[in-house]
Amino acid sequence: MRRGRASLEFERPPVIESSASVVGQKEGEGPLGKAFDRVERDPMLGKKTWEEAESAMQEEACRLALEKGGIRPEEVRYLFAGDLLGQLIATSFGVADLEIPLFGLYGACSTIGEALSLSAMTVAAGYGERVLAVASSHFATAEKQFRFPLAYGNQRPYSATWTVTGSGAFAVSDRETFLEKRRETRKMGADRSAAEEGLAVITGVTVGKIADIGAKDSMNMGAAMAPAAYSTISRNFMDFQVDESHYDRIITGDLGEVGRTVLLDFMAAGGHDLSKVHMDCGMEIYDSSSQDTHAGGSGCGCSAVTLSACILEKVRSGEWKRVLFVPTGALLSPVSFNEGQSIPGIAHGVVIEHRSGKESQEG
Amino acid sequence: MRRGRASLEFERPPVIESSASVVGQKEGEGPLGKAFDRVERDPMLGKKTWEEAESAMQEEACRLALEKGGIRPEEVRYLFAGDLLGQLIATSFGVADLEIPLFGLYGACSTIGEALSLSAMTVAAGYGERVLAVASSHFATAEKQFRFPLAYGNQRPYSATWTVTGSGAFAVSDRETFLEKRRETRKMGADRSAAEEGLAVITGVTVGKIADIGAKDSMNMGAAMAPAAYSTISRNFMDFQVDESHYDRIITGDLGEVGRTVLLDFMAAGGHDLSKVHMDCGMEIYDSSSQDTHAGGSGCGCSAVTLSACILEKVRSGEWKRVLFVPTGALLSPVSFNEGQSIPGIAHGVVIEHRSGKESQEG
Repeated sequence: MRRGRASLEFERPPVIESSASVVGQKEGEGPLGKAFDRVERDPMLGKKTWEEAESAMQEEACRLALEKGGIRPEEVRYLFAGDLLGQLIATSFGVADLEIPLFGLYGACSTIGEALSLSAMTVAAGYGERVLAVASSHFATAEKQFRFPLAYGNQRPYSATWTVTGSGAFAVSDRETFLEKRRETRKMGADRSAAEEGLAVITGVTVGKIADIGAKDSMNMGAAMAPAAYSTISRNFMDFQVDESHYDRIITGDLGEVGRTVLLDFMAAGGHDLSKVHMDCGMEIYDSSSQDTHAGGSGCGCSAVTLSACILEKVRSGEWKRVLFVPTGALLSPVSFNEGQSIPGIAHGVVIEHRSGKESQEG
Repeated sequence: MRRGRASLEFERPPVIESSASVVGQKEGEGPLGKAFDRVERDPMLGKKTWEEAESAMQEEACRLALEKGGIRPEEVRYLFAGDLLGQLIATSFGVADLEIPLFGLYGACSTIGEALSLSAMTVAAGYGERVLAVASSHFATAEKQFRFPLAYGNQRPYSATWTVTGSGAFAVSDRETFLEKRRETRKMGADRSAAEEGLAVITGVTVGKIADIGAKDSMNMGAAMAPAAYSTISRNFMDFQVDESHYDRIITGDLGEVGRTVLLDFMAAGGHDLSKVHMDCGMEIYDSSSQDTHAGGSGCGCSAVTLSACILEKVRSGEWKRVLFVPTGALLSPVSFNEGQSIPGIAHGVVIEHRSGKESQEG
């Protein structure tokens, strides 16, 4: 079950039973726009502050993921959740009403990778039949916290990324619980589309460690995160004794164009050509030429909503049999940044595989 | 293994193999002063900023816990770590050099409870033979972030607590790994004192959920946290079908005098008299009459260093056979606070029990 130095392989891979993505208007206008479950036209979601809006979005994503799976909140044992804000306020105020025992997580933009890893570990160990993983980010809360007041209209260099307004939530369940719920929802005549196709299961994880090469430019987070992505992907290859040919896609979170270049260079130096299998959620979510988003999208929400809206569909359908999903985080803080510290990075790898619907029925 | 709604019971309880506490001068002058492993006279620990000092303290606690157990960093599979600061900077910069795959956690002052829970879950599931849990707080970083500049000399009401400057680290291992290490360190003639006495094992956990009764006074964190402590302790009683007589001590993290009163009242209303078994780390760590600390100590470090320096010794010696350790967290953020939001609380329960040294040898 333990593999190599940092990875785990699950004998009974947990199922990503259902998921949901809620995004803002800009994300809705991007290339993945139609794939998101809900596009919120009002960036305040009817609330008084940006932070409350992000909380509302996180709760909405959780409730929607549950609703899509026909799951009641009390059928979820634990919640693994986080966001970018100091003291995780989007989470604290977002998920309280669900009344699910909570593990608060911080992994910057890698948070959904950390949440899915711990979710899969918890379910595979039998500690819970079903858990929920959620992460969020909001352009306005992030700019306010990490950079400049929006009204200041600061110009952004081309290496900068645009924080995604979005939240992705994922119900992770053991196979029996999933099959039982499917039988139940079929009886009730609920929406079958997701239930009848194949499954996405989590077969392994590679937990990341902090990688700090001394990057100090908060307007170039891709460069700060690329070494962490390199570290985790390389470790995954070593721990599972595989290489890039093992995966249909290796999907980083929010490296953007600059970070992607750095990652591919680093991997090439290690003898791995990732150019054909690499995809970056930050480069998929916006049309950089028309949306003025420069190097791409970023934030906890970026990889979370892309996983829910785009990646899982391709895995469930079998178009992709196996992907390595590697959300990347830049551990930037306005305090440490203003004190002249570097920006360390971290990335967590989650191996997500296709299982056919038939197999799963026989299960 | 699952108990009730939120608790887990471990069939093979992980061992708290070794631990360490590093504190500041004020804590060193308090009632537990002699019990701490290291008292740092310089609040800056020779660094340029308070934040760097907290990072250094966290690394020191980790290295000391490893050293006391004769453990090399590469013998630790995963690290569960957190602190109070935005984006966990004490952790990011503190533990990077250990090069251990990291799960970053945020549970405010309940963080060491969250870290020990996930550590025990990880080891009991066989995901790692040994993991490390660490949390820290620093009076100066916390005041700067949550309240007023120190130089401002703001007066503090009697309901306020004093953030502990301290970090506690814990190596959590499976029994076989622990016994093997003990044989190894005995051969090498290492310090035997800890090895020859009994063991402290984690037999169960109760994961907390967010409790928000609308408390809005950042100078009265005890009142904000007490409902969370009440929720988790009540849940623990229900899940394990026990009451206060089951434990030699029920130990909250940092309720202080005000929070303790609220907790005892709440529990009494539920039919439980906690007055004889309750202890609060925040009320143990300072002498409130002579140290001007008002309601008591607080911060992630408060319960972590008290666990290491005081509680574990009594459990290992068998003076206490079973304790419920319940670090309490107030999810206060300067942003949400200034926006008029309440201060939600969360508390995680860890059941720590004595095992005799003889039993453990028979293994």
